[in-house]
Amino acid sequence: MTLDLEALYTDLHRHPELSFQETRTAGVIAAKLTELGIEFEEGIGRTGIAAIIRNGEGPVVWLRADTDGLPVHELTGLPYASLARGIDPAGADVPVMHACGHDMHITAMLGALEQLVSTKDEWSGTIVTVFQPAEEYGAGAQAMIADGVLDRYPKPDVVLGQHVTPLPAGTIGVRSGTQMAASDGLRVVLYGRGGHGSRPHSTVDPVVMAAATIMRLQTIASREVDPRDVAVVTVGSIHAGLKNNIIPAEAVLELSLRYPDDVARDKVMQKVERIITAEAAASGAETAPDITIDHTLPPTINDVDATVRLRAAFERSFGEGTVVDPGMFTGSEDVSWFARESGAPLVYWFWGGVDPEKYAAAESAGTIEKDIPTNHSPYFAPVMQPTLSNGVANIVVAAREFLA
Amino acid sequence: MTLDLEALYTDLHRHPELSFQETRTAGVIAAKLTELGIEFEEGIGRTGIAAIIRNGEGPVVWLRADTDGLPVHELTGLPYASLARGIDPAGADVPVMHACGHDMHITAMLGALEQLVSTKDEWSGTIVTVFQPAEEYGAGAQAMIADGVLDRYPKPDVVLGQHVTPLPAGTIGVRSGTQMAASDGLRVVLYGRGGHGSRPHSTVDPVVMAAATIMRLQTIASREVDPRDVAVVTVGSIHAGLKNNIIPAEAVLELSLRYPDDVARDKVMQKVERIITAEAAASGAETAPDITIDHTLPPTINDVDATVRLRAAFERSFGEGTVVDPGMFTGSEDVSWFARESGAPLVYWFWGGVDPEKYAAAESAGTIEKDIPTNHSPYFAPVMQPTLSNGVANIVVAAREFLA
Amino acid sequence: MTLDLEALYTDLHRHPELSFQETRTAGVIAAKLTELGIEFEEGIGRTGIAAIIRNGEGPVVWLRADTDGLPVHELTGLPYASLARGIDPAGADVPVMHACGHDMHITAMLGALEQLVSTKDEWSGTIVTVFQPAEEYGAGAQAMIADGVLDRYPKPDVVLGQHVTPLPAGTIGVRSGTQMAASDGLRVVLYGRGGHGSRPHSTVDPVVMAAATIMRLQTIASREVDPRDVAVVTVGSIHAGLKNNIIPAEAVLELSLRYPDDVARDKVMQKVERIITAEAAASGAETAPDITIDHTLPPTINDVDATVRLRAAFERSFGEGTVVDPGMFTGSEDVSWFARESGAPLVYWFWGGVDPEKYAAAESAGTIEKDIPTNHSPYFAPVMQPTLSNGVANIVVAAREFLA
Amino acid sequence: MTLDLEALYTDLHRHPELSFQETRTAGVIAAKLTELGIEFEEGIGRTGIAAIIRNGEGPVVWLRADTDGLPVHELTGLPYASLARGIDPAGADVPVMHACGHDMHITAMLGALEQLVSTKDEWSGTIVTVFQPAEEYGAGAQAMIADGVLDRYPKPDVVLGQHVTPLPAGTIGVRSGTQMAASDGLRVVLYGRGGHGSRPHSTVDPVVMAAATIMRLQTIASREVDPRDVAVVTVGSIHAGLKNNIIPAEAVLELSLRYPDDVARDKVMQKVERIITAEAAASGAETAPDITIDHTLPPTINDVDATVRLRAAFERSFGEGTVVDPGMFTGSEDVSWFARESGAPLVYWFWGGVDPEKYAAAESAGTIEKDIPTNHSPYFAPVMQPTLSNGVANIVVAAREFLA
Repeated sequence: MTLDLEALYTDLHRHPELSFQETRTAGVIAAKLTELGIEFEEGIGRTGIAAIIRNGEGPVVWLRADTDGLPVHELTGLPYASLARGIDPAGADVPVMHACGHDMHITAMLGALEQLVSTKDEWSGTIVTVFQPAEEYGAGAQAMIADGVLDRYPKPDVVLGQHVTPLPAGTIGVRSGTQMAASDGLRVVLYGRGGHGSRPHSTVDPVVMAAATIMRLQTIASREVDPRDVAVVTVGSIHAGLKNNIIPAEAVLELSLRYPDDVARDKVMQKVERIITAEAAASGAETAPDITIDHTLPPTINDVDATVRLRAAFERSFGEGTVVDPGMFTGSEDVSWFARESGAPLVYWFWGGVDPEKYAAAESAGTIEKDIPTNHSPYFAPVMQPTLSNGVANIVVAAREFLA
Repeated sequence: MTLDLEALYTDLHRHPELSFQETRTAGVIAAKLTELGIEFEEGIGRTGIAAIIRNGEGPVVWLRADTDGLPVHELTGLPYASLARGIDPAGADVPVMHACGHDMHITAMLGALEQLVSTKDEWSGTIVTVFQPAEEYGAGAQAMIADGVLDRYPKPDVVLGQHVTPLPAGTIGVRSGTQMAASDGLRVVLYGRGGHGSRPHSTVDPVVMAAATIMRLQTIASREVDPRDVAVVTVGSIHAGLKNNIIPAEAVLELSLRYPDDVARDKVMQKVERIITAEAAASGAETAPDITIDHTLPPTINDVDATVRLRAAFERSFGEGTVVDPGMFTGSEDVSWFARESGAPLVYWFWGGVDPEKYAAAESAGTIEKDIPTNHSPYFAPVMQPTLSNGVANIVVAAREFLA
Repeated sequence: MTLDLEALYTDLHRHPELSFQETRTAGVIAAKLTELGIEFEEGIGRTGIAAIIRNGEGPVVWLRADTDGLPVHELTGLPYASLARGIDPAGADVPVMHACGHDMHITAMLGALEQLVSTKDEWSGTIVTVFQPAEEYGAGAQAMIADGVLDRYPKPDVVLGQHVTPLPAGTIGVRSGTQMAASDGLRVVLYGRGGHGSRPHSTVDPVVMAAATIMRLQTIASREVDPRDVAVVTVGSIHAGLKNNIIPAEAVLELSLRYPDDVARDKVMQKVERIITAEAAASGAETAPDITIDHTLPPTINDVDATVRLRAAFERSFGEGTVVDPGMFTGSEDVSWFARESGAPLVYWFWGGVDPEKYAAAESAGTIEKDIPTNHSPYFAPVMQPTLSNGVANIVVAAREFLA
Repeated sequence: MTLDLEALYTDLHRHPELSFQETRTAGVIAAKLTELGIEFEEGIGRTGIAAIIRNGEGPVVWLRADTDGLPVHELTGLPYASLARGIDPAGADVPVMHACGHDMHITAMLGALEQLVSTKDEWSGTIVTVFQPAEEYGAGAQAMIADGVLDRYPKPDVVLGQHVTPLPAGTIGVRSGTQMAASDGLRVVLYGRGGHGSRPHSTVDPVVMAAATIMRLQTIASREVDPRDVAVVTVGSIHAGLKNNIIPAEAVLELSLRYPDDVARDKVMQKVERIITAEAAASGAETAPDITIDHTLPPTINDVDATVRLRAAFERSFGEGTVVDPGMFTGSEDVSWFARESGAPLVYWFWGGVDPEKYAAAESAGTIEKDIPTNHSPYFAPVMQPTLSNGVANIVVAAREFLA
């Protein structure tokens, strides 16, 4: 039996599902795990799956693939482009696309498991694989942990994960330390006092309160954080009022914060709270703002020793120069929760999905930003091969490195 | 035959309708005009009515009453409180209330017409009465004019209108010159460039552009207009973004502007445009903002001679001290269009609807703001009498003053 | 004996002195009072003079003229233009000019006193005249009161004062209620923490704190005060830092506030303090700002009854149409202290000093702002006659109105 | 003959001089160069010295030491603490201190030259040494170049320099690429229109213009630069206005900008100009702002190959672990001009001057920031030994590495 990975990938790409709605996807994964004879459980963290391969004494290696799509209208023009739609949390009927490559993650993981199963005589130990839902909400890993996945399976000695990115195919990007930023999503409600637009003095104008707050929040990055450190305070949405001539009673802001580690997180969080509170006071607000944390993504910190070890293994297997330091990304991931909660080291790497010739042409033309679509773009489309087989090989090499 | 004004008022109060949806209201008015034997047309400016009483040679007096309710959930606890609902322009099913007293305006007007009809031997001339819809949208008067009301009826020698307010019953408030401010409603779209919340440098952040714009717009009132003049620049709504970690591509602001006259309007409008344009440039916006005027309400300017004449008539009829100068209101009205478009003088006055004892008690306790609900409040409820009979008498006195 | 008022005016104009340095001016006034046989004291409030005319039973009328010049370089080109210089409080050697017409005030007052002395048989009562220094600092009236002028002289039954302005000669401007705004001068020190310009995160940047504070202060006029009321919050000066690459430890702001009355003063003052305090908190300041009041000018509020009485007297004497309502001025005066501290009614009026033909020409050309220099301008020059004789007559009529 | 380096250091420390006033310092250096028999010229770039050691064929190595002190009042309590004073550019009489360790730089350089001269048989090539004035003004290197130092001496094959810092003695900090940021000092004049503080509408308020500009400048770092890159926009000084009740005609800002390289410099500079220009437009300024560049410090970029080579040489000579990557500093230096203008590679390193035991104690107590005074502090005092001898050895090793 051999999985047809390209057919599998094409099928998954055509049928993306939104976060926590990955039911068909889970069905496909379950079918393939069954084909491979691998023991697994469905429904962990709603639509997550955990699979285990027991192969005698030895280290426990956790592998992770994330499974959800995004509310993006696919524009790749591929023959297997998605036509799928879904219902988002606000109840809207939206197009759905695997615009972040999680279809590639699933397929490569299944391909790797097939190889690992078929070479069980060459290694010993235990492989736990989590097919994690809702990475895009930053919620799936915690949901699986809340459902007991860390208690019901052997604790990891190492957690491994990978993400397809717009590097040239054949290149692996990985660094020791912070690979991706930590992130929090905040929801802030500023309370004013509403009234008629012609009588501002009888109100506490929450629109002006919000504007002053937003301007002040800029000073965290510009004045309060070491210019050499990463700190992002984005106000991604603001909503207040219904009509030009009614001053509303409140304004709602949604913030996205980014930092390299937990110490920076605490500091920035305090600054954000300080500013929001003080700006409400400057407005004479009678009620203090509400600040709630919608989600928290930890920093994705690669263990130094494990990363050095894995880089060496990759270079041995794929050739010198294959592995680059991609720098820290300000984007965020929730894979870390499996490592943080279990105390295990993490290595999380990027693998390239762009036709190397196309990449080189764009690089020499200085048009990478324009010509190479990035994750979340409606044009994002890793080249199927050698991306798929590289993805499989990466996991096999990485898992074998840490197994006995 | 005598109209039962209290029953009529109670019926109208119980059945308010949203702007341009005053169909039942129009039906009731039509029925009463028919009872009174007054010639009229329905459907002018969608749901407006024009009625005419021809009574020989003499001046043409236009009387105006507005007819629409508001999307407010009535909390007065009155036995005849509204339970009505309506569909607002955004398609939402909302409660409706006569929270601005237009039911009182209609009833008093019909009562006055009855008296004027029954005393036709005492005066000569022509009375044109417009029952105007959609005052709350600032759109009804223009709709009636667009439908030709000024062409189909004799041109006015004077335009008269009144509004019930939280003055003590028995008091009339009217002043020469600007009685209510001019107002414009603007819709502003600020164009940025969207992107991921963790990569602000790849975007032009419209939320920050909006915040800077809002802060700058404050300087029009604080720095650019004579402190003795009225100028209000309210940003009543702002909407941008869907999610904390996506920087949106644009922000939409809705502004309400107020000024005493057209000269001030032009100046403030230029300042608003200057600031919005420059703040977009400060952000490095690639597309200039769109600024559209949703509606324009002219200043409600009372003709000096006509107002002096009417004040004297009111004082003769109702006693010295009855008439006060209420100052200019920063709220706006669309009654002026009938006068502006026809070149006729306008007198527009306020009449009190609060139990005088209650008013005096609140005044001596210094609790007027707290105890006396104002127009648009869910608690707004003029005391039925003597407000109704005062409203009738006001119109009769005013119309007779300007008729032969 | 008759004073040569034109010679006196010319002499005073040629020899202006800065606030609290009016020593030569005091000498001239003392000489003229001696000539007129009027009892007086010098040196009250440093360079002030109080004079008294006792003439039997009857009301006590206080008359006030202010005496100081301004640090302005005269550009009128008059043959008697000032060449004077003085030392300002900062020690600088500056040109001095009677750019606010106080020379006219002194001369008219002395001329009026001469007439009142020569007609003592026509009236009875007491006239106290204060020649007050340092009006331009808002400090002279309080200095005279601190020196006991209200204790050493009979308490006023009314306080009268006048100011020459760019109205046409022959016109008097006066209104009941607030004639000129109240004003406070504040000094605000914002405390940050200094450091190297390349390391903002190790500092609390007082420049940014000041900028945010200034932007927020704009919202008092734009959002927090009734658009129909006067409120001005001006940051007239800001000073912080010595060098581009050193973040300073503090910023110093100087504010000028304006309001129509004491109630508004209290409210605006609280708002200013609230904003300054909160913005420091938003910056994470470790030390709260210092806010000190440098000087307080009360509103110049004309007593309603006394003003009505005086307007009538002026119209009787000078003809109907002579008196206009000039509106409230946002500038400020310290004459009120004499009335406030003694509980007496005040009437303070403006009298015109522009050639009526020139004024009419400018008015019809729409060039008043350009062609008619205002007080404090280096071109300010009231036409000598009839301004002087009008000024004399005004005081005589006003004093006689309130004397027996 | 052997130089007494400790006596020399003590003497220099006791007699610091301000930038471009290093005349006594130049005299001491000249005396020692003469003692060492080294050919030199004084007065290059006002108070700079260039010295040359010709030793046959081979590479040309430039060594650089800076020589000026700072206007700081020394508080070290050392027996040889400075009591010196100087006249700063504004004419003020100020205390002077070698608060940045340039006395150590001079002494170590002279010690190294002595060794290099005495070992001329071990190397061949040419050593050019520049004793550069006015590093603290960022002006000395350019002054020497303007005086022709690069034309009058053999062009460098490599430029070497070092700076004493609060690392533990025995540690060398150096990195490839940007070691210290580029910096520009800007002077910005914002033009408004002045007027009376009570009449803001007749003015264009430059204080508000400045405040809005400062708030907007914060968005460069917060929104417009990759969060992983360094960008600092500091407004170090702002001055506007003389008096609370006069709105001034202009505001003057001084900015310090920092970036890692010239590409970033161009981008940030454009953003700064864009914002300043647009904010003036938002204010309705009639005159565009003036923006002038007071000084430009290039980035201090270490040549990759030369740095790798030197790190290896240091490790060979002083032991593995001696050399650390200190990260990029946001402070700036003008040493680069010698390399940039000649096209030669640069290596600029830091060497530790803190007693290692004291450093370790502070590190374990987490009190480094508090206990270890940094450059420019009035308490800055490198421990004399082994700092001096390390400084000598560093230069000798580095020079020898690049000589034949």
